[in-house]
Amino acid sequence: MIVTVSRQFGSGGREVGKRLADELGLQYYDKELVEEIANHTDLNEGYVASVLENGGFKHYAFTFGRSMPFVSPTPAPVTDVLVAQQKIIKAIAKRGNCLIVGRSADVILKDFRPFRIFVYADNAEKIERCRARAAEGENYTDKQLIKQFKEIDGGRKKLHDLLGTYPWGDKAGYDLMLNTTNIDIKKIIPALAEYIKNSTK
Amino acid sequence: MIVTVSRQFGSGGREVGKRLADELGLQYYDKELVEEIANHTDLNEGYVASVLENGGFKHYAFTFGRSMPFVSPTPAPVTDVLVAQQKIIKAIAKRGNCLIVGRSADVILKDFRPFRIFVYADNAEKIERCRARAAEGENYTDKQLIKQFKEIDGGRKKLHDLLGTYPWGDKAGYDLMLNTTNIDIKKIIPALAEYIKNSTK
Repeated sequence: MIVTVSRQFGSGGREVGKRLADELGLQYYDKELVEEIANHTDLNEGYVASVLENGGFKHYAFTFGRSMPFVSPTPAPVTDVLVAQQKIIKAIAKRGNCLIVGRSADVILKDFRPFRIFVYADNAEKIERCRARAAEGENYTDKQLIKQFKEIDGGRKKLHDLLGTYPWGDKAGYDLMLNTTNIDIKKIIPALAEYIKNSTK
Repeated sequence: MIVTVSRQFGSGGREVGKRLADELGLQYYDKELVEEIANHTDLNEGYVASVLENGGFKHYAFTFGRSMPFVSPTPAPVTDVLVAQQKIIKAIAKRGNCLIVGRSADVILKDFRPFRIFVYADNAEKIERCRARAAEGENYTDKQLIKQFKEIDGGRKKLHDLLGTYPWGDKAGYDLMLNTTNIDIKKIIPALAEYIKNSTK
């Protein structure tokens, strides 16, 4: 089983992804991990393979970049990173039973026929969610936050639509679109998992 | 609990609605019933109330128009029907525990905060579904069917968007959007019902 989760910034898509991966027993990968690996395109395949092999997000996401002595000191060019990302995402998918958040995995993996989720919410909900998670001293106005949503999601859309097929966030490209406005994400996860398990003919 | 189901023509939205209403124990109303009642705007409120009271679709949808001696012989003007529809849909909602397919019930009932579903599918799926249900001798080409989809859904969109708020089929206006492409609708109904039951904070 392969599940991809695309999401608007602030909609709780990552939470949906993490909890759903746990519920379904899937290996969880988020965009930061994929990016982190892909940023080091001068690293050998064995390194990337070992990162993937040893289990994703939980062990590496925030530390391995700094703790590995053989990390490249300068970031790789953007196109190299994008190419590397695609390779990595396909390598992850080939191993099966995984859930990937972001990084246009829905399009990159279309030949694998993943179950594709899109998570979204209205601005009020996204603002509330961002405020609840803000670092101390962070104090953006609603207007500033909404501007951020537009910028971040605009970036996601641009990268996604580079790869063609269908526009980011357009229902045609997804199997299920979840509005998390006024929803307690924890509570809908078991039903969501059941839906996915029963979604093949 | 109030659920509304909007849907692309041929996507199986009505099947989703019927099965879901059964699963959740909700009274089921489809657009034909609402239309049928609303068409007779010269009928007194007692009549409409009795139709609603006596249980919707199963008993009346296809026969009461002809079997009632006091039905008006000419159809009511469109605007009257639209106004009557809104009244009827609100009357249905006030009685609670119902599922309404179509007729912009999602917008009309926004103060009731219904759970709003949108059902869609790709053209190949919709064509297959239409063919499976076609009357004998009916023999449309794919192109003709796709043209029909556009026309019918265009009509739905026009009426829906008259009422404002958000465009028909735009994710912002729905709590859950289901792509029925390659899905066996029967199989996802229990999970869908659970999702809705758990979707309030």
